[in-house]
Amino acid sequence: MSDESVPVLNKETMGIQEGPPLNVSGDDIDSLRRDVQRLMDIEAIKQLKHSYFRCIDTANWEELETLFHDDIQVHFVGGFYEWKVQGKKDLMVQQRQAFHRESVGHHNGHHPEIHVLSETRANGIWYLSDTMWVLSHEFITTGTALYWDQYEKVDGRWLVRETRYRRIYEISRPNPEPPQFSAHYLKHHGTDLSQGG
Amino acid sequence: MSDESVPVLNKETMGIQEGPPLNVSGDDIDSLRRDVQRLMDIEAIKQLKHSYFRCIDTANWEELETLFHDDIQVHFVGGFYEWKVQGKKDLMVQQRQAFHRESVGHHNGHHPEIHVLSETRANGIWYLSDTMWVLSHEFITTGTALYWDQYEKVDGRWLVRETRYRRIYEISRPNPEPPQFSAHYLKHHGTDLSQGG
Amino acid sequence: MSDESVPVLNKETMGIQEGPPLNVSGDDIDSLRRDVQRLMDIEAIKQLKHSYFRCIDTANWEELETLFHDDIQVHFVGGFYEWKVQGKKDLMVQQRQAFHRESVGHHNGHHPEIHVLSETRANGIWYLSDTMWVLSHEFITTGTALYWDQYEKVDGRWLVRETRYRRIYEISRPNPEPPQFSAHYLKHHGTDLSQGG
Repeated sequence: MSDESVPVLNKETMGIQEGPPLNVSGDDIDSLRRDVQRLMDIEAIKQLKHSYFRCIDTANWEELETLFHDDIQVHFVGGFYEWKVQGKKDLMVQQRQAFHRESVGHHNGHHPEIHVLSETRANGIWYLSDTMWVLSHEFITTGTALYWDQYEKVDGRWLVRETRYRRIYEISRPNPEPPQFSAHYLKHHGTDLSQGG
Repeated sequence: MSDESVPVLNKETMGIQEGPPLNVSGDDIDSLRRDVQRLMDIEAIKQLKHSYFRCIDTANWEELETLFHDDIQVHFVGGFYEWKVQGKKDLMVQQRQAFHRESVGHHNGHHPEIHVLSETRANGIWYLSDTMWVLSHEFITTGTALYWDQYEKVDGRWLVRETRYRRIYEISRPNPEPPQFSAHYLKHHGTDLSQGG
Repeated sequence: MSDESVPVLNKETMGIQEGPPLNVSGDDIDSLRRDVQRLMDIEAIKQLKHSYFRCIDTANWEELETLFHDDIQVHFVGGFYEWKVQGKKDLMVQQRQAFHRESVGHHNGHHPEIHVLSETRANGIWYLSDTMWVLSHEFITTGTALYWDQYEKVDGRWLVRETRYRRIYEISRPNPEPPQFSAHYLKHHGTDLSQGG
C-alpha cells in the first residue's frame, strides 16, 4: 500500500460543496417555503439511500432500479477490488450477480451529511459499515468506507446520480467454516446463478 | 428453510403505504404549517424508536413503557424463535424477563423510512442490526432484520402501535466461553431473575 | 464492578432537558420561522456529530478542530479507562495521539435524540458502537456506550460544548494475531508517533 494509492479523504478531495448553512433564509413566506423544501429534500435523500441498503441486502431488484439515475456513475475502491460501473443497466446486471443465493450481505450507511445545492442537485457523505459473506467462495469481507454521492431530482424524485467510496479499513479473508445461519433471506430470494442469474 | 417460511420482504408485502411525497404542498401558510408538522412528526418518530433501542439495552423500564400504545401488537420472527405479544402490559413483562442481569443487548436501528399518513397515523421501515449474549445459557444471537411499524399519535405524542420484523440473516450459536466484559451495564441494572424478575 | 461505579443512565441522571415537543408552535409566520429553524438546528447538530466520527476515524485534524467549542469539556468512562479533557487545545493533542498509524478506529454514532433548548443551546443523546484496534499494543476494544452532549451555537454554527459517555458494555482483550487488513487508511494518514506525533 503506497501513500499514492490511499488518497486523503476530506471534503475538498471528495469534491463536496456545502451549500448554504442550515439557517432560515428570510422572513417572508417564499423564503420559508424554500427552507421547508430543503429540509424535505434532505429527508428524501436519506430515505433514498436507506432504501438502497435495504434493497441490495434483500435482492429487491424491482425497487432498487427506481433509485438510480439512468446515467449513474459508480466507483468503489476496496482493498483488493475496484468496482467501476457506468449506467443503470450495467449496474443492475452487476448488483444481481453480487447478491446471489450463496451470499449474505450486511450493509449499513451511517452519519449522513447531505448538502442541497439547488432544487435539483445535492451531494452527501455517508459512513459505510459492511460485512459480506460469499459462502460459495468461502470468503468474508468486512470493514468501513466513506461514500461521497451526487443526487439529482428528476420528475419530483431524488435519484442517485453518482456514488463513490474508499475504504477506511477492510479485512478480507478465507472463511472455510462459515457460521451456521439460522436465517438466511438471500438463500431463498437472492439471484439463482445456476439458472444463469 | 422452505421458501414459504421466508416470505418476500418489500413495501407491498410489508403493507407499507407511502403517503404524499416529500414536497411542499402549497404556497399558503396553512400548507406550510402542515408541511412543517409533517417534518416534526418524522423527527419525533425517529426519536421514539431511538429511545426504544436505548431503553431496552439499558433496562430503562420506566421510560420504555411510555413509548408503547396500550394495545401494541408485536410480532418478531427470528430464525429459531417467534415472538408474538399483544398489549403493553404483557410486552413489558416479557421485556423485563429478556433484559436480565446475565444478558448483554446490542440493538441498533438503522435506515429509517418514515411515512406520515395523517395527523395521527404513520408507518416506518427500519433495518435492525443486533447482538444478544445470554451468559446464563452460554448463547449468542446476532444478525439483521427488517422492521415494519405502525405509529399512532395520542394526546400529542407518537407511540408504537404495531411492530414486526423478519430476519435478513441470523447466526445463533452456543458461546461456552463468552468474552470477558470490562463493562456490563445490565449486570448491575438488568432484571434480577433470582428475585422473581 | 460495584453498583456505585455503574450509575443508572436515564434522561434525569444524564441531565437531559427535553425542550418543547415537536409540534408547530403557532399559526403565524414568526412561529413557523422559529419552528423551521428548530428543525434546521436538529439537522445541523446531527451533521456536526456525524462529521466528528468521520474526522476521528480518518485523522482529519483540520476539520475536527472546527467542530469543538474552545472550552469543550470531555468525560468518557470506559471499562478500564477514564478520559477527562478540558479545552479544545488539549483535546486536539490527545485525539492526534490516539489515532496514530498503528491504530484502526471504527466509531459509529446511532440513534440521535436532539433537543433544542434555545436559539443557541441544545443537548443530545447518542448510542455509540465502536471498535478500536491498537496494533502496536496488540490490543482491541469494542462495545457500546451512551453519549450525552451539550451543544452551543457560536457565530451561526453549532459546536460541541460538552460530551460525556458511559459504557453499556465493553470487551477489551489482547489481540496478538490481529487480522490482515487489506485496507488501512490510518496507516497512511494517522499521526506518525515516531516523528513525535
